[in-house]
Amino acid sequence: MQATMFYGPEDIRWEHRPDPRIELPTDAVVRVVAACVCGSDLWGYRGFHPEGPPRPIGHEFVGVVEQIGRGVTTLKPGDFVVAPFVISDNTCVNCRNGIHTSCLHRQSWGGTDPDGRINDGGQGEYVRVPLADGTLVATPEPPADALIPGLLSLSDVMATGHHAALSAGVGPGRSVVVVGDGAVGLCAVLASVRLGAERVIACSTHLDRQQVATKFGAGDIVAERGEDAAAVVRDLLANTGADCVLECVGTEGAMDQAMATVRPGGRIGFVGVPLGGAQLHIGQMFARNITVGGGGAPVRAYLEELLPEVLDGRLDPSPVFDLQLPMSQVAEAYRAMHERRSIKTLLWP
Amino acid sequence: MQATMFYGPEDIRWEHRPDPRIELPTDAVVRVVAACVCGSDLWGYRGFHPEGPPRPIGHEFVGVVEQIGRGVTTLKPGDFVVAPFVISDNTCVNCRNGIHTSCLHRQSWGGTDPDGRINDGGQGEYVRVPLADGTLVATPEPPADALIPGLLSLSDVMATGHHAALSAGVGPGRSVVVVGDGAVGLCAVLASVRLGAERVIACSTHLDRQQVATKFGAGDIVAERGEDAAAVVRDLLANTGADCVLECVGTEGAMDQAMATVRPGGRIGFVGVPLGGAQLHIGQMFARNITVGGGGAPVRAYLEELLPEVLDGRLDPSPVFDLQLPMSQVAEAYRAMHERRSIKTLLWP
Repeated sequence: MQATMFYGPEDIRWEHRPDPRIELPTDAVVRVVAACVCGSDLWGYRGFHPEGPPRPIGHEFVGVVEQIGRGVTTLKPGDFVVAPFVISDNTCVNCRNGIHTSCLHRQSWGGTDPDGRINDGGQGEYVRVPLADGTLVATPEPPADALIPGLLSLSDVMATGHHAALSAGVGPGRSVVVVGDGAVGLCAVLASVRLGAERVIACSTHLDRQQVATKFGAGDIVAERGEDAAAVVRDLLANTGADCVLECVGTEGAMDQAMATVRPGGRIGFVGVPLGGAQLHIGQMFARNITVGGGGAPVRAYLEELLPEVLDGRLDPSPVFDLQLPMSQVAEAYRAMHERRSIKTLLWP
Repeated sequence: MQATMFYGPEDIRWEHRPDPRIELPTDAVVRVVAACVCGSDLWGYRGFHPEGPPRPIGHEFVGVVEQIGRGVTTLKPGDFVVAPFVISDNTCVNCRNGIHTSCLHRQSWGGTDPDGRINDGGQGEYVRVPLADGTLVATPEPPADALIPGLLSLSDVMATGHHAALSAGVGPGRSVVVVGDGAVGLCAVLASVRLGAERVIACSTHLDRQQVATKFGAGDIVAERGEDAAAVVRDLLANTGADCVLECVGTEGAMDQAMATVRPGGRIGFVGVPLGGAQLHIGQMFARNITVGGGGAPVRAYLEELLPEVLDGRLDPSPVFDLQLPMSQVAEAYRAMHERRSIKTLLWP
């Protein structure tokens, strides 16, 4: 098969890899129908991670089950499946607590399994899926093609936006500020509207992203940055700040903006993968009774709730995909996102 | 009148002060019926705060209204009142949001008001109470003497334990670990039991405090410290950690212990006044989806709920007071708490 390999900063290659096959009874092999590039894939692309040997990359894909191991009981060949960005068993204590990202048997796409195998990445023609029963969720029937981008967003960004909103306590009557206008930030706007927020303010400096935020239900757009943005938000919100702030970037500046924007007693939900050793000042949180929570979204826990809404059209996150390319042009997909020419790029095999 | 003055580390004096009188229409003058020493009073006593001129001290008291200003509408002379540890107007946006500790007109006992007056402290015979309508809560009728210690605990420690529990999401079915066996930690045990926690584990190395924790409903006592304590807790809780951890100390070590004790996806409620520039590592929170929230308890917001339960005997935090002294011996009260001979010392005028 052909698949995407990460060689190092700005070095993404579409190349031959061995065809995957069932290696363990709990495996499935999935033919990829659509995949995409994640903002977090760009950290390595930009050189923010230590370098290592080339490895398969991509952790968001949907596809069709081709083969299953003899221990797989919830899937059958032909099923259309959504793959969360983390491999989990869905049975351990942390999965039962709904935190599949802390699964005791967690594995990563493109990572190494406990026996030393290199797992496939999601940006390829086929993927061997470990712990297939625990990881994959099948649709009741094959979806229409038009729904595939929305379903693909459930692999990560839509579920992550939902996690940001839940972590910040978004609900009816709440005022919400979303910091970050990447695909996750935009999905966080959509998730907040879906959860009944009274008012959603999106911080975005890019016209194309502002338009998606507005389409997703943001009532106000704040184009200022940093402390200026916080001042505008406080002006909009009775001079106090937002009940809920969704930090969807992962930088210190974004967390500072979130902290400056939230009201006393408010909550910050953060889902941006934190870069480096970022710290929170406890005294600042204490003085204003700020709650901070979040982390890697337990996508698997949310699929049962979100998947039916995408299938019946109530939830449509697909506008975050503003560029679609054949997978063989994956290097261009990375470039387009790196250069911010694309919010999020979808890859067809 | 006589009142307590803080002169500097280990220098507490009971001395003459001018009798308070109504200075603003929103003032009341209260005759103190009982007061007490707070763990946070000890930070200055131990030299952890920058030194300044001598000042009145004490922020927990109950008493009887003697005089009211012409603008006071909810209180009358003769009312028995509970004073929260922060002075608030109970009308600004932050008070309406239930965060009275962030009141836009917040003042402190022993602090300086906007006109430059030095406010009285609570450890004295009388107190001028600014913003009396906003700050004080009266009982429907004069309480029995036996209820006074419990009512006094509502000034701070019981309400603060309740705040820790709410901040950590304590409720039915939850497992709870309380870090800290001071009066706040013990009240946090009681608050957790009251909120329906399934299992409450108290960390305490002192026999007398363990006994109060057990009386308040802790099912397990962990006497180990630091990482050893965390290992024992994980052993008790299916090897994963607690749903809710209540950090009631305010040191980096206590927060580390909380972080090591909470399960993935769990919540830490923190109410210990943080010493110095303590930081939280965002990456650690992200990796395990830990939520951290808390701060100064909005006592005023909780009095309506907690006061009736103390009055009818359902809620009795009074065992945290294990030493009672006449107020003239306030210096000995500080010494007894500083030397850990007393959990919390009550002062009678």
